[in-house]
Amino acid sequence: MTYCVGLRLASGLVFMSDTRTNAGVDNISTYRKMHNWTVPGERSITLLSSGNLATTQALVSILDERSKAPGERQPSILAAPSIFQVARLVGDTLRELIRTYSQDGPSGDGQFSATVIVGGQIKGGEPRLFMICPEGNFIEASEDTPFLQIGETKYGRPILVRAFDAKMSFADAIKLLLVSFDSTIKANLSVGLPLDYLVHARDQFEPAFRGRIDRQDRYYKMISDGWGDALKKAFDSLPQFHLKG
Amino acid sequence: MTYCVGLRLASGLVFMSDTRTNAGVDNISTYRKMHNWTVPGERSITLLSSGNLATTQALVSILDERSKAPGERQPSILAAPSIFQVARLVGDTLRELIRTYSQDGPSGDGQFSATVIVGGQIKGGEPRLFMICPEGNFIEASEDTPFLQIGETKYGRPILVRAFDAKMSFADAIKLLLVSFDSTIKANLSVGLPLDYLVHARDQFEPAFRGRIDRQDRYYKMISDGWGDALKKAFDSLPQFHLKG
Repeated sequence: MTYCVGLRLASGLVFMSDTRTNAGVDNISTYRKMHNWTVPGERSITLLSSGNLATTQALVSILDERSKAPGERQPSILAAPSIFQVARLVGDTLRELIRTYSQDGPSGDGQFSATVIVGGQIKGGEPRLFMICPEGNFIEASEDTPFLQIGETKYGRPILVRAFDAKMSFADAIKLLLVSFDSTIKANLSVGLPLDYLVHARDQFEPAFRGRIDRQDRYYKMISDGWGDALKKAFDSLPQFHLKG
Repeated sequence: MTYCVGLRLASGLVFMSDTRTNAGVDNISTYRKMHNWTVPGERSITLLSSGNLATTQALVSILDERSKAPGERQPSILAAPSIFQVARLVGDTLRELIRTYSQDGPSGDGQFSATVIVGGQIKGGEPRLFMICPEGNFIEASEDTPFLQIGETKYGRPILVRAFDAKMSFADAIKLLLVSFDSTIKANLSVGLPLDYLVHARDQFEPAFRGRIDRQDRYYKMISDGWGDALKKAFDSLPQFHLKG
């Protein structure tokens, strides 16, 4: 499994992804699931991937190769005129890849399916955030649904629903994501550290902040330990239930 | 879907279940998923059910009929010498039911599968709590894993993992379950009010407390509204993240 989240804030976009991949529970590895393509001053595009690793690696490699020689290998996400067109391109490529692996040849135990989040900004447009389905179609984050999750989404959702605020700072957004990821990591072996994050600040066409949070990270430990205590205090602060026989 | 939880406390067992059943999203109904069989002063057995409604209703009806004329219709859960034997009996009945519906006859779109939680106490024994799989086998709650969930378990799990304490009072246990159920209800349409609860106090062979919490319940509203605020305060109390470029 996997856990990736993209947040749509008033001031930009914030992305976080875990790095654990697994085939069963006895074959786990660490892979980066966050990829960024930047043309400084012109566009910044970030992709988070979940699902079959062969499919998502192929997807990223194809997008990457095309972006390196965009003149020869159309269509490139670096030539797309809008983030919407980037999402279409990624969706078409993903759909085509899954179809190719799924038909005819030998079939394995696994599925070739994958789901990705793509977001960013191109000069002249707004920051936009999309979730792309294996079928190639996609949905966009909006004011009403300002965050998108893929992978193992359920454990970490309640805190996002309750504490997300489109006006929060980037630092608070990272803190919120760490709480959401920690709740997931504590409950599900298939989501694991280290975590990658990337901040896209509105109208700044390269990542404003990016980094990796690993097992030794002191801040993550503070959040992970502190959240348990904070939750208990929050729980104690609620009014008492009165039992009636 | 469904959400049911059984907690194993030092002082007894606490059960809670929702009442929503659905076939798709356009056909929802309210059904009790909590059933109790009591022989005052001798035994109290509680069952929570999730899965195919026809299967779980048949299961409860069979257990119920046998318990009304235990002399004639063996084996009855009211004659079983231990909660372990009750779990075996329920497991065998469940397995047999699912097998009967699944083989031969016409097949529907749905699955006949079901999972149940059974717990209680019989005089001379300890309070015990089991989760029974559709295959008829089962696992028991223990000191290390002191609660069992069935149905839509993920949204409500993080708060149980963090705030559960085997020494908590029955009132606090109900409060904890309400927070866990509220997180689930806020995220998933297939889990809904009213909620049923039942408290089995150790060595008291009939339910100590039981009740139903509906949409109008003032305490539930306080918890549901208050938890959002309490979570935000808890979140704010955590140390700030420092962004590095």
